[in-house]
Amino acid sequence: MAESDSLCDIGFIGAGVMGKNLIMNLADNGYKVCAFDLDHNRLDALLEQDARERGERPPRVEACSSYTELLGRIKAPHLVILSVPAGAPVDDVCHKLLDAGLKADDIVVDTGNSLWTDSVERCERFKGRLIFFTTAVSGGDVGARFGASLMPSGDRYAWTRIEPVLNAIAAKVDPDSGRPIERREPGRPVSGGEPCAAYIGPIGSGHYVKMVHNGIEYADMQLICEAYHMMRSALEMTPAEIAKVFREWNLGPLNSYLIDISAEVLATVDTDTKQPLVDVILDRAGQKGTGLWTALSSLEVGCPAPSIAEAVYARSLSTRKVLRTRAAKKLLGPDVAPVEPARRAEVIEQLHDALYCAKICVYAQGFDLMKLAAREQGWQLNFAEIARIWRAGCIIRAVFLQSISDAYERDLKLSNLLLDDFFAGQIALNQHNWRRAVADASLLGIPVPALSSALSYYDAFRMESLPANLLQGQRDFFGAHTFSRVDRPEEEKYHVQWSEPGRPVVEV
Amino acid sequence: MAESDSLCDIGFIGAGVMGKNLIMNLADNGYKVCAFDLDHNRLDALLEQDARERGERPPRVEACSSYTELLGRIKAPHLVILSVPAGAPVDDVCHKLLDAGLKADDIVVDTGNSLWTDSVERCERFKGRLIFFTTAVSGGDVGARFGASLMPSGDRYAWTRIEPVLNAIAAKVDPDSGRPIERREPGRPVSGGEPCAAYIGPIGSGHYVKMVHNGIEYADMQLICEAYHMMRSALEMTPAEIAKVFREWNLGPLNSYLIDISAEVLATVDTDTKQPLVDVILDRAGQKGTGLWTALSSLEVGCPAPSIAEAVYARSLSTRKVLRTRAAKKLLGPDVAPVEPARRAEVIEQLHDALYCAKICVYAQGFDLMKLAAREQGWQLNFAEIARIWRAGCIIRAVFLQSISDAYERDLKLSNLLLDDFFAGQIALNQHNWRRAVADASLLGIPVPALSSALSYYDAFRMESLPANLLQGQRDFFGAHTFSRVDRPEEEKYHVQWSEPGRPVVEV
Repeated sequence: MAESDSLCDIGFIGAGVMGKNLIMNLADNGYKVCAFDLDHNRLDALLEQDARERGERPPRVEACSSYTELLGRIKAPHLVILSVPAGAPVDDVCHKLLDAGLKADDIVVDTGNSLWTDSVERCERFKGRLIFFTTAVSGGDVGARFGASLMPSGDRYAWTRIEPVLNAIAAKVDPDSGRPIERREPGRPVSGGEPCAAYIGPIGSGHYVKMVHNGIEYADMQLICEAYHMMRSALEMTPAEIAKVFREWNLGPLNSYLIDISAEVLATVDTDTKQPLVDVILDRAGQKGTGLWTALSSLEVGCPAPSIAEAVYARSLSTRKVLRTRAAKKLLGPDVAPVEPARRAEVIEQLHDALYCAKICVYAQGFDLMKLAAREQGWQLNFAEIARIWRAGCIIRAVFLQSISDAYERDLKLSNLLLDDFFAGQIALNQHNWRRAVADASLLGIPVPALSSALSYYDAFRMESLPANLLQGQRDFFGAHTFSRVDRPEEEKYHVQWSEPGRPVVEV
Repeated sequence: MAESDSLCDIGFIGAGVMGKNLIMNLADNGYKVCAFDLDHNRLDALLEQDARERGERPPRVEACSSYTELLGRIKAPHLVILSVPAGAPVDDVCHKLLDAGLKADDIVVDTGNSLWTDSVERCERFKGRLIFFTTAVSGGDVGARFGASLMPSGDRYAWTRIEPVLNAIAAKVDPDSGRPIERREPGRPVSGGEPCAAYIGPIGSGHYVKMVHNGIEYADMQLICEAYHMMRSALEMTPAEIAKVFREWNLGPLNSYLIDISAEVLATVDTDTKQPLVDVILDRAGQKGTGLWTALSSLEVGCPAPSIAEAVYARSLSTRKVLRTRAAKKLLGPDVAPVEPARRAEVIEQLHDALYCAKICVYAQGFDLMKLAAREQGWQLNFAEIARIWRAGCIIRAVFLQSISDAYERDLKLSNLLLDDFFAGQIALNQHNWRRAVADASLLGIPVPALSSALSYYDAFRMESLPANLLQGQRDFFGAHTFSRVDRPEEEKYHVQWSEPGRPVVEV
C-alpha cells in the first residue's frame, strides 16, 4: 500500500489535447495527478511530456489502467476531473467510477463542452451517489496548458474544496493594469495575479455563462469581419494594409485578443502560393453550435440579442457558396462610385468607432441575456465577476472587460450595460461615425448585419415610444388580440369594434 | 334509427369562436353538421345562429350531448373535425372518440394551432386506430366564417375524402385578377373562384407551412411599423397623413391586407379622447409564439431568416417599456436636423421602395426556410401552390403572392426567390431608394431592424466572397479548427502552424 502522502491529489480521466494540457497545468502548480485514459498511447505521451518538463524533479503525473486503480491511488475524499467528450461519455464515466467504489462525498468535475441543461439533469441523476460539479473552460488548448478562463458551477460546499485547484490553473490578470499576465513556459506558474476563475452559481449556470461567452464571441468576430469587408471591398485595401489598421486599433479601446489575431491572420502569407493567406482561405464558416444555442436561448427567454443571431445567420449564409456564386452573377448591387482614396482615412475612423459602439451593444445583449436567464432559473449571477474572469484566458479577452466589470461594480443591479455612465458616454461620443459607417455600407452594398443590427438595437432601446402601438392596432384589427392604453392602467385591455359604425373602443 | 340520408355529413367538436364560424361556413356550403361541445351554451348559440341565418330552409346544424351520440348521427366512415385548444385537449378528444366507437378508417381533422412536431407524434400515436389529419387555418374568425386559407396535411387517401369539404370553406381567388373574392354575407357561398386550400404533404408539413406564414407575417408587420415610425418621427406626419400614404401604397405593388388595415388603424379616432387611436395604444407588442417558433426553426435548420428574428426581438424589446423610458432619458441620439418638409415626398418614396424590396427579402427568407425544412423532413412542397393559397383568406394575403406563385411556376426548383427574374429585376429597380432609406434612418436615429437586416441579407446573398475567410482564419488561429482553400478541393482541410517560424500551411 502506498503511504497517504504518496497518494495523488487528483484523479484525471481523459488525456486528449485538452485533458493532457490541463494535467500538465495542474502539475506545474504542484498537484500530483493520477491519469486514466482508455487509449494507452495518450497516457504514454503524457508521462513522456512530464519526464521532459519536470527536469530533475520526481514524477508529477502517474498513469493507471483502471477506474478501481485510479480511486486507490488518489486521496480520499476523491476529486476526479473529467475531460471526455460531452454527452453520453460523461454519464458512462460516472457510472464506472461508482462501480469502482466512488462515494457520496467524492467530487466529479466535468470540464467538457456540455449543454447546460444536460449538466442540470446529470447532477440531479447522480444526487446522493456522488457530487457532480462542472467547470466550463474557455481558452482552447493553450488556455488549458497555461491558464484558462474557468466558469465553475455546482454545489457550494464542493466549490470550497475545488476552488484552490481551479484558481491555480486559471489565467491570471495583473491587478494594476487589468491585462493578462502571459505565461508560455512550462513549469513556471504565475505567482500573484487575479485568477480568471470564480464560482458562478448552481449547476448549469457556469455552462450557460460560457455559452453566452461564445455567443458574444460569434458577434465580435462577425463585427471584425464586417469592418474588414468594408476595408477590403469598398476601400480596396490589401490584407497587409488592413493588418496594419487592426494593429493600430489594438492599441486603443478595441484592444483585444480577437483584434490581435485578426491582424496576425491578415499579415500571414500563404507558404505555398505566396499570396496573402486570407485570400486563399475559402469563405465558408464552420460552427460548433454554442453561438446557435445562445441565439436560441435569447429567443426562448425573450431577450433581444439580434447581433448574436445575425452572426449565426452570417455563418449559415457563408456556407451556401454555390448559391451565392450564382446570385453574384444575377443580382445587381448599387450603382455607386467606390470610395475616393482621399476619404479612406475618414472611413477607417468611422469603422473604428462603429466597431467600438457595436461591440458595446453586443456585450449589452449578452449580459442582458444572462440577467434574464438567471432570473428565470433563480441564479444570483455576479456580473462584475463574470466580466473579470473574461479578462484573460478566453477568446473574448480584452481590456474592455475591465470597463464592464467596473460598470457592474458601480451598480450591481445595473439593468443594462447601455445605462452605465461610461458606456452611455462612449456611445454618445462615437455614434456619429457608427451611423455614417452603417449608412455608407448600405449605400455601397457591403453587408453589415451585425453593425447595423446593433445600431437598431441601440436606437430601439433608447425609444420611449416604439411603433408597437401600430402593431397592437393591427393585431386587434385582424385577431381581436386587444391592447392596453397609455392613459389607463396597463392591465385593463381594450378592443375596437372595427365593424361597428364609429368604431367604438370598449374595455374587455 | 334515422334514415341514412338524414344523417349528418360531418361531426364537429368545439363550438368556440373559430369552431362556430367554421360550422356556419360548412352549413352555408351545404354540409349538414352535428356539433358537440362540453359547454351547452355554445351549442345553444350555434343553433340560434343557424335558425337566424337559414331563413325558411330546414336546420343545417344539429347539436348532440355525447361523443357516442355524435358518432351515431353522422355518416360512416366518419369525418370528425376538431376546433379545440392545441395540446392535450386534442389527444383527449381522440381518446374519447375511440371509446365511443371510432373506427380505423374514420378521419379526425385537427384545425387548431398545434405545434407541427406535436401533430407528427400524435399521428404516429393513433396510427391504425383512426386517421389523424390536420389542417392549419389562417384568417382568424372572419376567415373561418367566410373563407380561410387552409394548409391541410396528413394521409393522402384521407385527403381525397376531405378535399371537397376544405375547398368549399376556403377563401376564393378570382382566377383572372389573382385577387380575393370578398364574401361577407351569410348563406351565400362564392360560386367559382380558386379555393385557397391545397394538400401540403405528410402530417406536420401543413402546420410547419402555417408557422412560416406567421413568421413572414411578423416581419411584414414590423416592416410596416418601421415605415410608420420614420414618417411619424422623422417626417413628423400625423396618423391621418400616414393613413393616406398607406392607402396610396395599397393601390400599387404593396397592395395587401396588412397595408390596408394599417391605414384603417391609423385613420381611426379614439371614441373616448378623440385623439388618433394609435396615439393612445400602448406600444407593448404581444405575441403568441408562432413567429418565435419560426425564428427558432430557422436557426436549427441553418437557414438565414434575420428579418423574421428581428421582428420577434422587436416585439420583445417593445415589452420592456420601463427600461426604455429610463434609457430614453439617458441615451443620446444623433445630433441631426429633422428632415426638411421639402424632402418629405422624396423620403416617403424611399420608404415605399424600401418596404417593397425588404418584403421581397422576407418572403425569400420564409420560402427558403420551408425549402430547407422540407429537404430535412423529406417533404415535397409545392411552393407555387403554397403562394397561391396565401392569396386570400390569410393575414399576409396580397397581390404580391401571385408574383411568387408565378416565379415558382416558371421554375419549380427555384433555389431562392431572389434568383427569379421578376424579383431580381424589382430589387434592381428599387434598391437605390431602399439603401437611402436605411442610410437616412441610421443617420436620423430611427431603429429599422427589419429593413436593414433585409438589406444586409440581400447584399450578403449576392456576394461571391464573404469575409468568412477571415473568420475561418481566426478560428484556425485560436482553435485549430482548420479551413478549406479556394485553390484546392473543399474536402481537403488545412491548418497553419501559427507558432512555427514562417507559419507553414499544412494539410491535415
